[in-house]
Amino acid sequence: MSDAAGLLLAPWRGTVLHEWTDYNGHLRDAHYLVIFSMATDALMDLFGLDEAGRQATGHSIFTLESHINYLLEVKEGTPIEVRTQILGVDAKRLNVYHTLHVADTEPVLAANQQMLLNVDMSGPRAAPFAPTVLPRVQALAARHQGLPTPKYAGRSIALPG
Amino acid sequence: MSDAAGLLLAPWRGTVLHEWTDYNGHLRDAHYLVIFSMATDALMDLFGLDEAGRQATGHSIFTLESHINYLLEVKEGTPIEVRTQILGVDAKRLNVYHTLHVADTEPVLAANQQMLLNVDMSGPRAAPFAPTVLPRVQALAARHQGLPTPKYAGRSIALPG
Repeated sequence: MSDAAGLLLAPWRGTVLHEWTDYNGHLRDAHYLVIFSMATDALMDLFGLDEAGRQATGHSIFTLESHINYLLEVKEGTPIEVRTQILGVDAKRLNVYHTLHVADTEPVLAANQQMLLNVDMSGPRAAPFAPTVLPRVQALAARHQGLPTPKYAGRSIALPG
Repeated sequence: MSDAAGLLLAPWRGTVLHEWTDYNGHLRDAHYLVIFSMATDALMDLFGLDEAGRQATGHSIFTLESHINYLLEVKEGTPIEVRTQILGVDAKRLNVYHTLHVADTEPVLAANQQMLLNVDMSGPRAAPFAPTVLPRVQALAARHQGLPTPKYAGRSIALPG
């Protein structure tokens, strides 16, 4: 997805590490998700569930479901970034869409939709976002409300034809 | 999914390693996919794309798309296994469904559907399965043809309601 207006969140930047790559020096399929998971951690920081916020609220975020589309290979040592669009939110869930890019370039290397659940860790059990967190989640979602639905959101896997 | 008839493939068994877990000792979300990816590697061995087969054919398997449902937590040191159902196959694609279990037990810890593509590595470009491989892929698929569609196959991610 393009981000000419600079609306997307940019929660994670880094480099493709040697230990994430295969014998050809390409990022392994499972390790795209390691990167997207770090982007989700960074997104949690943005809405107040960093380590201090998790301790203060007793809440954390669990991933319920995750869908990845692999589009292009990327090599060890490449500077990369994840951009994030909030697709929706309710009282305890967050529907997010990450895209992986070579840093500062537009082509999408992979797309990852995640459904996240707010969890009261004393259970653990599903719980509404804490009063300190909900307005921040909603503000991020509102900022993305007018954006088009991205290409790989809502996909299901099937053989063609 | 239950496997009373013993029809499902059991391509991978192992243990939840320390380096796959979080500060609570639970398997991290990204590392469920590390395990499912190893199960796919073991499935490739079953139909003749082990290292020797990859060298002989010049082919390998790329993941096009992957969908995970996280159902239960699992702790460091737990013996685990993946069971695999072939959902479908065409000339160059394989639609597979993995479930993760505590070894020798039925509850599904996570489900993972993957669309796999046969690739001629000299491109790399999509290519039909090699003549040595295709009959083996088809034989596995035929063995699973009568099985019911598993619960988390074909899912798409959306907020409820």
